[in-house]
Amino acid sequence: MPGAGQGAAARPQRPESPEEPLAREDLLLAAAYVSDAQYNRNVPFETSPQAIRLYYFYNHWTMQAITYFFICIDLSLALFEEPALFPLPFLATSIAEVLCLTAFFGRLVHFAKVTPQRVFWKDTKNICVMLTIALTLIDLIIYGSLETVNIHSVRWSRALRPVFLINFPESRQIRRAFRSIRNTLPDILYVFLLFMFSVLIFSLMALKLFGDRGLKTVEGSPYFTNILEIAFELYVLVTTANSPDVMMPAYDFNWWYSLYFITYIIINTYIFMSVFLAVVYNNYRKHLKNEIRKLAYLKRHKMTEAFNILKVKMDTEFVVKEAPWRQLVKVVAPDISSSHLELLLRICDEGQKGYMDKTNFLRLADLLNIQVVTINVKTHPLETWLPRVYQSAASLLIQKMVRHRIFVWVYDVIILINAIFIALDEKNPLISYAEWLFLSLYIVEILLKLYTYEPRAYFGRKQFWNWFDTLIIMAALVAMVANATIQSARKYNSQQILDIVLILRILRLLRVIVSIQRFRVIVTTLINIGPTMLTFGGLVLVVYYVFAIIGMEVFHGKVLFFDPNFTAPGALVCGNPALEDSIFAQSRYCRNNFNDLASSFIVLVELTVVNHFTLLANGFALVTHQVAKLYFIGFHIVVVILIVNIFIAFILEAFFVAYSLEKSEVETAIEKKIQELGVGVQEEEVQDGKLIDNVDTKDCGFSGDDGDNKRKSLKGLYFRIASKKYRTVDALLQRMFESEIAPEDEGPSLDEILNFSPSDIYPKNPNFENSA
Amino acid sequence: MPGAGQGAAARPQRPESPEEPLAREDLLLAAAYVSDAQYNRNVPFETSPQAIRLYYFYNHWTMQAITYFFICIDLSLALFEEPALFPLPFLATSIAEVLCLTAFFGRLVHFAKVTPQRVFWKDTKNICVMLTIALTLIDLIIYGSLETVNIHSVRWSRALRPVFLINFPESRQIRRAFRSIRNTLPDILYVFLLFMFSVLIFSLMALKLFGDRGLKTVEGSPYFTNILEIAFELYVLVTTANSPDVMMPAYDFNWWYSLYFITYIIINTYIFMSVFLAVVYNNYRKHLKNEIRKLAYLKRHKMTEAFNILKVKMDTEFVVKEAPWRQLVKVVAPDISSSHLELLLRICDEGQKGYMDKTNFLRLADLLNIQVVTINVKTHPLETWLPRVYQSAASLLIQKMVRHRIFVWVYDVIILINAIFIALDEKNPLISYAEWLFLSLYIVEILLKLYTYEPRAYFGRKQFWNWFDTLIIMAALVAMVANATIQSARKYNSQQILDIVLILRILRLLRVIVSIQRFRVIVTTLINIGPTMLTFGGLVLVVYYVFAIIGMEVFHGKVLFFDPNFTAPGALVCGNPALEDSIFAQSRYCRNNFNDLASSFIVLVELTVVNHFTLLANGFALVTHQVAKLYFIGFHIVVVILIVNIFIAFILEAFFVAYSLEKSEVETAIEKKIQELGVGVQEEEVQDGKLIDNVDTKDCGFSGDDGDNKRKSLKGLYFRIASKKYRTVDALLQRMFESEIAPEDEGPSLDEILNFSPSDIYPKNPNFENSA
Repeated sequence: MPGAGQGAAARPQRPESPEEPLAREDLLLAAAYVSDAQYNRNVPFETSPQAIRLYYFYNHWTMQAITYFFICIDLSLALFEEPALFPLPFLATSIAEVLCLTAFFGRLVHFAKVTPQRVFWKDTKNICVMLTIALTLIDLIIYGSLETVNIHSVRWSRALRPVFLINFPESRQIRRAFRSIRNTLPDILYVFLLFMFSVLIFSLMALKLFGDRGLKTVEGSPYFTNILEIAFELYVLVTTANSPDVMMPAYDFNWWYSLYFITYIIINTYIFMSVFLAVVYNNYRKHLKNEIRKLAYLKRHKMTEAFNILKVKMDTEFVVKEAPWRQLVKVVAPDISSSHLELLLRICDEGQKGYMDKTNFLRLADLLNIQVVTINVKTHPLETWLPRVYQSAASLLIQKMVRHRIFVWVYDVIILINAIFIALDEKNPLISYAEWLFLSLYIVEILLKLYTYEPRAYFGRKQFWNWFDTLIIMAALVAMVANATIQSARKYNSQQILDIVLILRILRLLRVIVSIQRFRVIVTTLINIGPTMLTFGGLVLVVYYVFAIIGMEVFHGKVLFFDPNFTAPGALVCGNPALEDSIFAQSRYCRNNFNDLASSFIVLVELTVVNHFTLLANGFALVTHQVAKLYFIGFHIVVVILIVNIFIAFILEAFFVAYSLEKSEVETAIEKKIQELGVGVQEEEVQDGKLIDNVDTKDCGFSGDDGDNKRKSLKGLYFRIASKKYRTVDALLQRMFESEIAPEDEGPSLDEILNFSPSDIYPKNPNFENSA
Repeated sequence: MPGAGQGAAARPQRPESPEEPLAREDLLLAAAYVSDAQYNRNVPFETSPQAIRLYYFYNHWTMQAITYFFICIDLSLALFEEPALFPLPFLATSIAEVLCLTAFFGRLVHFAKVTPQRVFWKDTKNICVMLTIALTLIDLIIYGSLETVNIHSVRWSRALRPVFLINFPESRQIRRAFRSIRNTLPDILYVFLLFMFSVLIFSLMALKLFGDRGLKTVEGSPYFTNILEIAFELYVLVTTANSPDVMMPAYDFNWWYSLYFITYIIINTYIFMSVFLAVVYNNYRKHLKNEIRKLAYLKRHKMTEAFNILKVKMDTEFVVKEAPWRQLVKVVAPDISSSHLELLLRICDEGQKGYMDKTNFLRLADLLNIQVVTINVKTHPLETWLPRVYQSAASLLIQKMVRHRIFVWVYDVIILINAIFIALDEKNPLISYAEWLFLSLYIVEILLKLYTYEPRAYFGRKQFWNWFDTLIIMAALVAMVANATIQSARKYNSQQILDIVLILRILRLLRVIVSIQRFRVIVTTLINIGPTMLTFGGLVLVVYYVFAIIGMEVFHGKVLFFDPNFTAPGALVCGNPALEDSIFAQSRYCRNNFNDLASSFIVLVELTVVNHFTLLANGFALVTHQVAKLYFIGFHIVVVILIVNIFIAFILEAFFVAYSLEKSEVETAIEKKIQELGVGVQEEEVQDGKLIDNVDTKDCGFSGDDGDNKRKSLKGLYFRIASKKYRTVDALLQRMFESEIAPEDEGPSLDEILNFSPSDIYPKNPNFENSA
């Protein structure tokens, strides 16, 4: 591999002699490499210790939090600017904006300090941010000066605000999604052109077939007489939004014309939309693989760099000694517990020789990535305080009862009965009392569980459902008590509190899911992909924000909403005479407007869902010019064809990975080692509170064990490995790919890695297994 | 492999001695095996020559055509039975039905004759068909006798008619799709339960949040007060059919309530629907792979059986001699040309030794499957008749011009100009004349091409676009002449002919696609998956038919359609007072009814498209009982959640296979051999009429060639291999899998093959390549 020698040769200034003491800078540099590899960052930096400290500071969570805070402020400014949800004077919002810009600029300067100049200026991210800052300032100045002479202009730079969200180094995931979209564009463009061609051909046919028939739509307007309108209607038919309506006049006229529409729907709605999904999904997979391959090789590369810095010559091979290794780990992970450190050392330095070879050293980043929770196997507090009572026959019976499967079933039945009670009328006082009964039953359940299981284990970090249970019930208790107090004192129900009580009460029903094994697999997969779904949240936010700003500029004030109880003139036509007799007004859609950011977002959600797309589009087309339809088609192409398809592709991929893992566990060497040492506890055992039983049993057997040195020193300490179930798709794919790289393989050189193209990884000889 | 010995051992009565002459029966038996393997049928048969002849007769295309004819008759009976499109008396339809049943029974008896009894009775297909015949007869008798005493009962057995379509051995593809659905059911059931659970939880929340608010819908009915109605509305929201409407009252009341709906849409509409797709797709892939593996092994198994019958001992190995091989091929493919037979022999018997070993023999089924078109390299007829004129400078210039790229471009431009003219108003006489001009230009184009290229090659079997061109233009010419004649004679336009002329004129525009390479890839993939899409047509037909029959029984006559120009009383309420003031009647949906089979099918298409699902469902719920909603939900689950998702999965898979093949060609040994012999012509060269150039060139160089014996004997004859582009997904996957089986590997035993389960093929150690 060309990269191997090159990586070492790139830094000839590093001490190669094994006898030279380890310099503080070298340690820091190695630590920077390791922590970089650990989090898969990719920030080249200067090698002076000060630069490294600056770099650490740059990556500190407080700095990131501050940046995000300013991004939030900047984005939410749209709530206060005209058209505003909460109006503020222009001066206030502009000062806030300038503050944000300053913060962004400061962050950029900080980034420039920790990055080599050449790299900094090559990075389009930074250029983008600088340009946006400059443009926003220019726009602010122009708008402000025009405003002082009372000329109202357009604050166009507001649509650029999401650039800050996308381009700051922390939003890697959102950028990746955008990159994926950008890469998909050329492929999708051809399908899109073909699709548009097909729509046009069908439009022409429709014009010729129906144009001269003198048919009328339900609203009485002429049917299919203008080629552009036909093209729009047929485009909308692809979204299915005007499905039978657009066909009805022709169908009423002649039975056979329905075949035209059915052909159109099969070709354009079903086949073309599936082809879009296929193209998007194919590209998504391709680029996901490429990115992950890049990350895996980068990690290997960085760990090799770190090894080259710390290595000393021992006999024939280069190794890293225990002392620098310990220092390194302490720098990289300052808050690591000493027992955890011991564990890692045991894994890396298996023979306890006081040094480790390259293969073992390279594992460090992975080892630090594995979430290891040290569990102190402790006895139940009650057992310590009142051993006699806790170990009495009655107490043991209770514990046995609670641990029994039937206990879970009984509570499932109780929850279902509760569901029926909730569905019944609440006005009945008996049912109202029953609610108190159910609540007390749930509290008894939690208390019993706490009595049986060790409380600290019960509320462990990963015990999602225990936390969920307790929080829901506590909150319900608090809310019900608060409501009862207010009710008895003031004789009226607080609507907000009641709403909260109701929702909490119903959420409790979710617990039934946990009892059924088959449901749990689906739910766990969904929870696992939750974090990545937030990426899509960011992506959607960016696109929505841009469209909302444009929409507000174009449509604000055109459609007004009046309170239904308030009989203002024009309330029935949404305050716009153009909407008279329109279906938009008749369907009482007045609240679907672009008069503030929140309303705009809701309209955009409705457009994403696609149904009644025409109704909305036609409504807004009536109050502005027909050109407004372009806005709606543009939105459909970007959000529905691109983003929703990427979202579907992502969920498909996540489930395929989850399915293939269900059948065959991918256990890496690292986990096996932890298992070998006998100090690992599988996540599965932790669920249902089985953990404590298990640990107890093991603890009992410990003294009678073979007195293994390793085990003894770790007695009373267990390590929980982050379960296979709690992994993101990325992590899973990355591990799959890593297990394919041989330990000796240092991969291609850094430049090669950074320039990986997705087409490289296409298998040259696809075989049956990987093709399907 | 255990199967190897077993297969041979199963037939000890076969002559093993090499000297024994080949019996006619053996040849027939071997031929039956080979043709079975060729078409991947799986019909075990008796070994008497008469049985084999019966078997051949059973598989003859006329018999299959007759069966399909009777199936069509049987299915189309619904058009003539009450509620009928074309009413016929009950006696007529029942006699037709009994005729069909007799035909099906006869076919079944025939099948029983060619199948061992044990196998016949084990096959659920046959039992199903027999049961259905019996049930239909019983139903006919009951209905007929009740009708004579004037009691109207339900012809429930009509819903069973698609069973004949599914269960006849010829509909293997449809059965496979159904099997795929059946196998997916358990997996999808759990997701569906979870989904329904989530819908119920949200319904409860909605009931508690909105039920007591006294809100009203646009129609003025109470909003969200009944848990079942809420569940229905929320279920429909998953289809997006009532998207903003269902939210508007709550949204108008309080801004924050929109969050409830957005959460619901994200969880249930987007995530759950994607999970459904993921589950369906995952199962589809799994079962597709399994079926294909089964087919590949079955083929290998049958070919081995055939080899065992024909083999003779030669030195140390068993071989098949040339003479029986020739006989075999002639029996299997009676209409093979002698040059084609020669080619196959050359490929199998490479060294021309007069016999072939097992590996080469096993290829036979594949070789026969490859569509080889023998092309006689002929000179242009004009060159033969008028060599002087055809080879003159002017003539050569014309030929060069026509072959030039610009010629294609010029005609593309002409087509686009034509498109603009079509879009313009036709009343203008100038434009009407222009149409004649365009038509003559197209005719000139075809004549020029026929002048330049050899006509028989131009109208070759695979020259789809040439045929398309010529047919469209000829048809347009005929239709225009016919129209002009009628017009001048009777002074009026025939609407039907005009419609046809218009559509033909517009279809001509499709030719532009062919000129653009990127478009062609997509179009070819779409055309390739066309045949398999017909499978889905069958599948959809079956499901639609069953739902249409049920729908007609439940809803017929409930909604009436009156001609819009005819002012009958009740025309505005579709003849049903229950629909007064309903949106159904207001939207003029009266024609969406279940009053005959054709209308029912169109309503079902509209329901598949999902938009205005509520409007339709509520309309029919008004005229019947609310229970009718179950019909609509059932239809949605079966068609949209299952069938449409399988359709999408199928298109995704087809495109993934197409994409992976674009990057890396899978060339099997067979094709390579044809290439080696130098008698193959790639499909690519054939397109655009380049073929003829190519062949001409080669022909010229022939005499100066190295006088290769093989070539000489085939001089003037070329073989065209079915292009890689013209393959179905199944065929591609099968070949990929076959290339994985070693030639010596005879696979598992027949019983094992037939009992393959999809879980077997899950890779035990998934690696990076095949996971993503």
